[in-house]
Amino acid sequence: MVNYPRGIFSSIEHSISHQNKIIFSDRGMTLEQQINESNEYYLNHNIAVIHKKPTPIQIVKVDYPRRSRAVIKEAYFRQASTTDYNGVYRGYYLDFEAKETKNRKSFPLKNFHEHQIIHLQKCLEQKGICFAIIRFVTLNRYFITPASYLIRMWYSNSKKSLSLIDIINNSYEIKSGYNPTLSYLDGVDKFIIDRI
Amino acid sequence: MVNYPRGIFSSIEHSISHQNKIIFSDRGMTLEQQINESNEYYLNHNIAVIHKKPTPIQIVKVDYPRRSRAVIKEAYFRQASTTDYNGVYRGYYLDFEAKETKNRKSFPLKNFHEHQIIHLQKCLEQKGICFAIIRFVTLNRYFITPASYLIRMWYSNSKKSLSLIDIINNSYEIKSGYNPTLSYLDGVDKFIIDRI
Repeated sequence: MVNYPRGIFSSIEHSISHQNKIIFSDRGMTLEQQINESNEYYLNHNIAVIHKKPTPIQIVKVDYPRRSRAVIKEAYFRQASTTDYNGVYRGYYLDFEAKETKNRKSFPLKNFHEHQIIHLQKCLEQKGICFAIIRFVTLNRYFITPASYLIRMWYSNSKKSLSLIDIINNSYEIKSGYNPTLSYLDGVDKFIIDRI
Repeated sequence: MVNYPRGIFSSIEHSISHQNKIIFSDRGMTLEQQINESNEYYLNHNIAVIHKKPTPIQIVKVDYPRRSRAVIKEAYFRQASTTDYNGVYRGYYLDFEAKETKNRKSFPLKNFHEHQIIHLQKCLEQKGICFAIIRFVTLNRYFITPASYLIRMWYSNSKKSLSLIDIINNSYEIKSGYNPTLSYLDGVDKFIIDRI
């Protein structure tokens, strides 16, 4: 019946009310906000160029009022065909998805949509650095989890979710902090070294 | 007075009326359509993962009619902060902008917006493979022009446009064809070799 891509609502809320930035703490920030702020920091300090992709929209009707901006009057959300983030860092192509859970002990694999898994697989085949940033909100813990591991678990029939221990054993833990808000490239550096 | 990013109108027209694909010829196709079709070909053949970024939209009002899809009722175009295309190819980060001109002898540099030039410069610093695909519509000629050259010309006070000869001498010419519609990775391959 109702048919729109999952995750749409949080994007909308985010784009409407992204004003109150809490700069010196991760309290109250979504993972997306933390990553966006960190990307801004990385960009401004010439460390990496990573952007969140805009939500894809199908535009149906646009008004052009005189002497003012064009207004979109009818449009629909479209299903994305990629992950949310990509960019370049020291010659490496980075591609990742950000996911958070309020669970304390496990991360449900249904947080990933099939198109994201397929996209990560395709990027891996092209030798991209592909991963997820997973946040356990209530534990205040963050992980860089390689896509190769996630894809294997996603296609394994026996796994419906990853335990916290699974994630600890197969990821690079990262810390939230001040500048940047979430220095996820620290984890990516370790991942790149292990991968080579 | 009227204040919206340049290039917006063509995107709108494109997203509204993208139906009539002419598959076996470049006649009637915009450069964007040719690139999108080629990207689809490259993706389906596991050659590269390159996507056009969605147009960034600021959503203001959304309706959620019962039993049907969410409808965006008020939204505005936002200025993009990147180029239109990026992705991964054989471990390389690719980033580019597509531009076409109806001129026969020169390409006006004002076709590039400052944010695109800045973004290409930042990606170059991260060792990305950065370029523009330039199409001379009436000549039916296509070029992969390295970003480093474009950036230098953009910041040179003496140049308002690049002559066709300038572009020939500083680019890799590519050909339109059948599968893919525009095999631009042929030019990228040469560019990568020269760059190393």
